[in-house]
Amino acid sequence: MKFKYEVLKVCKQSGARIGKLTTPHGVIETPVFMPVGTLGTVKSLSPEEVEEVGSQILLSNTYHLYLRPGHEVVKAAGGLHRFMRWNKPILTDSGGFQVFSLSSFRKVTDAGCEFASPLDGGAHHFISPEKSIEIQRALGSDIMMAFDECTSPDVTEKKAKEAMERTLYWLDRSYKAAQGTEDQILFPIVQGNVHRALREESARRTVPYAKCGIAIGGLSVGEPKPVMYEMLELLNPLLPKDMPRYLMGVGSMDCIVEGVLRGVDMFDCVLPTRIARNGTAMTLKGDLNLRNAKYKEDFSPVEEGCDCYCCRNYTKAYVRHLITSDEIFGGRLLSIHNIRALHRLTAQIKNAIAEDRFGDFVKRFFDEYQA
Amino acid sequence: MKFKYEVLKVCKQSGARIGKLTTPHGVIETPVFMPVGTLGTVKSLSPEEVEEVGSQILLSNTYHLYLRPGHEVVKAAGGLHRFMRWNKPILTDSGGFQVFSLSSFRKVTDAGCEFASPLDGGAHHFISPEKSIEIQRALGSDIMMAFDECTSPDVTEKKAKEAMERTLYWLDRSYKAAQGTEDQILFPIVQGNVHRALREESARRTVPYAKCGIAIGGLSVGEPKPVMYEMLELLNPLLPKDMPRYLMGVGSMDCIVEGVLRGVDMFDCVLPTRIARNGTAMTLKGDLNLRNAKYKEDFSPVEEGCDCYCCRNYTKAYVRHLITSDEIFGGRLLSIHNIRALHRLTAQIKNAIAEDRFGDFVKRFFDEYQA
Repeated sequence: MKFKYEVLKVCKQSGARIGKLTTPHGVIETPVFMPVGTLGTVKSLSPEEVEEVGSQILLSNTYHLYLRPGHEVVKAAGGLHRFMRWNKPILTDSGGFQVFSLSSFRKVTDAGCEFASPLDGGAHHFISPEKSIEIQRALGSDIMMAFDECTSPDVTEKKAKEAMERTLYWLDRSYKAAQGTEDQILFPIVQGNVHRALREESARRTVPYAKCGIAIGGLSVGEPKPVMYEMLELLNPLLPKDMPRYLMGVGSMDCIVEGVLRGVDMFDCVLPTRIARNGTAMTLKGDLNLRNAKYKEDFSPVEEGCDCYCCRNYTKAYVRHLITSDEIFGGRLLSIHNIRALHRLTAQIKNAIAEDRFGDFVKRFFDEYQA
Repeated sequence: MKFKYEVLKVCKQSGARIGKLTTPHGVIETPVFMPVGTLGTVKSLSPEEVEEVGSQILLSNTYHLYLRPGHEVVKAAGGLHRFMRWNKPILTDSGGFQVFSLSSFRKVTDAGCEFASPLDGGAHHFISPEKSIEIQRALGSDIMMAFDECTSPDVTEKKAKEAMERTLYWLDRSYKAAQGTEDQILFPIVQGNVHRALREESARRTVPYAKCGIAIGGLSVGEPKPVMYEMLELLNPLLPKDMPRYLMGVGSMDCIVEGVLRGVDMFDCVLPTRIARNGTAMTLKGDLNLRNAKYKEDFSPVEEGCDCYCCRNYTKAYVRHLITSDEIFGGRLLSIHNIRALHRLTAQIKNAIAEDRFGDFVKRFFDEYQA
């Protein structure tokens, strides 16, 4: 078995845990934040930089790579690891979320989803569970995601239930399509929108498909944070303890802390790199907008005490100058800082769990952090 | 004396030379190509990357840094070397060329040039020779340039002469303003447009102000290449042999080769980084447009035999994918490659000169190179 998950420690004070997920491309210590390399590149960064800030695993997007450059090209290159020169684990999403959020036209049936590409003159494409797995197998990710239908928090409960049922039906097909490889594992996704009964049912019927990991989808899509936390609390006892739980699309510091407290082990989000390019630095005291004129002659590092390349070497004044001048290197420096900031956070979380004081840590974190 | 230039070798076959320019921030071996870091950053690259590709000196733009972040900010940071973390030599231009080429409004008098900033709502600024030197002293560049008036090749000879005279008048003032520092040296600039008589007169009257280097301005601004080469040939015997000659704004491979053949020692241009971001790779066989569909599954390096980070590690297919997807890392990889390609070219030129075979080299270069 090339995949294995072990719980290394459960915090006596909070119940949060540290774990270790083994994959063919290496071991991931959880809780973990996964930076996003949508198109086979973490925007603006080299693989060396992504590794140097402490990233253990990347997420890449099936939908985007299917459209550009095409999964066949990536396969011909020897797979995504080789194409992009990242030798640690990769998780690919299923494309489900993007089909729903990025396509101008889409038609969902039980068979799959037809959609118009935003690129090639609106040409129609069709992704089914089988197609999604075929693409993910061509990409060669370590962790594949089941093809799912994600709904917005403002749809009716009836619609949410339909999407949940379809997700379960598609899960069965994703699962079958994913058989026959030892180098890739499939994570099923719990859906059910913000409805307790649906989440419970989805969890119960999804768990049997989870072999070495399970994901929570359909959250952080517009609902208030307390609602997300309520769903995580509901799911915590329902999901298997012997595998990692991956909360999809979450990457703010406060949500990571709240997520770990509610049993989540894995997180991903474009947030750190997206806001970096816009001039925002993530710090343990909250976000800083480096465009602010008050940093014009501030020759201190972006975050005191941070050990990243940006903070070791450059000043707020210089980063502000680059950002206000639309210089690419500014977004690059802040991308390095922001990813490092999340990795430092998870390192602190792990230490607190190891020392049975994660409950105290959460309190102190929120004393300092201004959302 | 903190500045010194020595000719190390003159090629018996071609008369081209190798030299060594000593500055307070290190030695520059000539012929040299200087990458441009307009706003205190070579677009998309870190200082480490610029150094790793073999850059010995950077050019930075006085006009841009005066407007953003302001030379006083850079001075407060400890100077441009410290602000941007580049510890090798820096050359700053005078702002003259930018005032003429980038401002929507400008009014030139003998006093200086009033212009409207393209940034701060069109606010008017005034740069005189003294102001230009004041800014360059605040930036702390090793090599400062005299404030000059550059004309387009389509102005009348009368206009060209007026601008030449004004440049000479301004040179005297730049020179006086630049006295009193041992850490910065001033390069005067020969103007005279494409007129032989003006170039000769400008050279004759400019040379007395040259102490450790002299520049040729007003070329590569729209005139045909043979006209530029004719002007360089005219100037070659008129300029002092005991100091480096800097041909401003030139950075294509063919022009560097032709320039060295005509006595030029220093070059700068935004070309390698600008075309990189647009997807063009510079190679010894000519430019490659990586957007071309034929590279979609081309898993060879951008240039066979190149030792840069891009060519050592990535394929044309991957770079093409990044470029066609507007991924920043694509422009970054090609910027590294293109600067390295020019440094490899000057290294080959130096070897050929050292071995008295630069004439042969030029022939072989043009057999291979397709402009």
